Amino acid sequence: MTRILLAGGCGFIGSHLADRLCRRGDLDELVVVDNLWTGRRENLVALSDPRVSLVEMDVEKFRSDQKFDEIYHLASPASPPWYMKEPLRTVSANVVGTLNLLDHLAEGGVFCFTSTSEVYGDPIVSPQPETYRGSVDCTGPRSSYDESKRCVEAILFEARRVYGTRIKVVRLFNVFGTRTRPDDGRAVSNFITQALRGEPITVFGDGLQSRSWGYIDDIVEALERYFWLDGVDHPGPLNIGNDREVSVIEVAQFINRMFPRSQIRFDPPVPQDPSNRRPDLDRCNRLIPGWRCKVSYEEGVIRTVEWFTRELQVGVAP
Amino acid sequence: MTRILLAGGCGFIGSHLADRLCRRGDLDELVVVDNLWTGRRENLVALSDPRVSLVEMDVEKFRSDQKFDEIYHLASPASPPWYMKEPLRTVSANVVGTLNLLDHLAEGGVFCFTSTSEVYGDPIVSPQPETYRGSVDCTGPRSSYDESKRCVEAILFEARRVYGTRIKVVRLFNVFGTRTRPDDGRAVSNFITQALRGEPITVFGDGLQSRSWGYIDDIVEALERYFWLDGVDHPGPLNIGNDREVSVIEVAQFINRMFPRSQIRFDPPVPQDPSNRRPDLDRCNRLIPGWRCKVSYEEGVIRTVEWFTRELQVGVAP
Repeated sequence: MTRILLAGGCGFIGSHLADRLCRRGDLDELVVVDNLWTGRRENLVALSDPRVSLVEMDVEKFRSDQKFDEIYHLASPASPPWYMKEPLRTVSANVVGTLNLLDHLAEGGVFCFTSTSEVYGDPIVSPQPETYRGSVDCTGPRSSYDESKRCVEAILFEARRVYGTRIKVVRLFNVFGTRTRPDDGRAVSNFITQALRGEPITVFGDGLQSRSWGYIDDIVEALERYFWLDGVDHPGPLNIGNDREVSVIEVAQFINRMFPRSQIRFDPPVPQDPSNRRPDLDRCNRLIPGWRCKVSYEEGVIRTVEWFTRELQVGVAP
Repeated sequence: MTRILLAGGCGFIGSHLADRLCRRGDLDELVVVDNLWTGRRENLVALSDPRVSLVEMDVEKFRSDQKFDEIYHLASPASPPWYMKEPLRTVSANVVGTLNLLDHLAEGGVFCFTSTSEVYGDPIVSPQPETYRGSVDCTGPRSSYDESKRCVEAILFEARRVYGTRIKVVRLFNVFGTRTRPDDGRAVSNFITQALRGEPITVFGDGLQSRSWGYIDDIVEALERYFWLDGVDHPGPLNIGNDREVSVIEVAQFINRMFPRSQIRFDPPVPQDPSNRRPDLDRCNRLIPGWRCKVSYEEGVIRTVEWFTRELQVGVAP
């Protein structure tokens, strides 16, 4: 009897993880908790699986008499405009959410958390190994996200040290792809929806800030292997991402070439936008050997454009 | 009608702050919330003031129909052995406590928070200015304290940015003095209680790690001036401490000379004990001009020894 709880399962990454969990023959029950703040019910196609149920609720408020053998906590906005608009709610979803969910973990169960490369802040070390302590301004406009992710890591590693809780923590680097909200607000999805609507493609700052774009299918494959498939016994934190570093302007130009009707517009830089971001994948290569991001950003963008084209036609736009 | 809430008012620093608050003629009501986890009821001598009341309760659970014009959140263990033993409770007191207390702030009220030099972690910059982003291992054994303080700073500065909440945040550097618990576990109080009991004075590591010892009377004077006396209008963060950097072994030797019967014993280093700590006081000198730590560590130790001598005689020892 394997009972799994997935918080944030209607979100971009969470819904893809739900699909993978449903491939498991040993899954008996998957409870998805989501308040549909940034998640969308239609993302959760896994809901057609009779083992899956959806509880529409804040993760902080979730209560159950049952315990879960595996808990996946992905309930958090991940896009700056979203978390910067409701920073306290962001901290609460992450930190209070984790404290609450830990109470629902069965004895010997495993708690999996998707942390972020944002724990490195604006890094002065590149690529970033997991041991790098980061450069986050804990009073800055991105701090609700960065610091609540750091705080959850602290909670989990301390729970492991003091209570022996089994944990698995990943730090995800700039994931993009299908099931992003049209109004998500991050670079790739922004550029695509702008281009599809014939609007200017807005680049913040000079666009020379670099990111490591990981396509969703590659990323969830890594999650699946690390969290359950490969039987990895390591708490992390584990960098997961693409170590091909690409500038924001390069992506904008690529999309612009697909949609020459749009023009690139340069807007003022976003405050404290990290100048670079690239995962050191040594640990990843050791723990899930052979895995790497296979989908280039070019191929990923093409797939995402196809998806958004369908999405925007059926009118899910904001 | 000035109504003030002080969380952690039975603690070491909190109880001294309560004394100062009671000097205010404009104070009508002071509600102290403390669960007596590390605080002690006998510290709160201010309770003899009829305007003061004590609510024995976790700060996360405090509820009131009244709003408060000023809220001081000092409810957190601050000594490594204490917070390392109950890390989740530490995060909860700080983070969940702050989220809860913010709901009790009157419109236009001010929220004051005692953060810590530990937000700088094991600093690679010395002295540490408030702009230094720190070097904290968010998965390490000190992270429940360091990261929850960082996370509360994030909450408050984001509340200020998004909701216009008035905040004042200080970062305190190694405060010591009267009303520390005999079993507090930090260097100065440890050394003194060990020496008073004729036990070995235990230094962790080689003792060359440095600290900036601030005597409690000096520190609460700075708090009083910044928080209300001087009418300062600045959210912080504000370093408050002594910028005379002294090694741990030097303090041990000083106490050893007072109690030659005890011997200094070297124990293995504490994991991730910061190697140095010294406040950059530029901002402090600007905001509360003329203030500085006047009590030397030698004088402070002598005063603390006198206090502990009385304490241990009346049997408050663990």
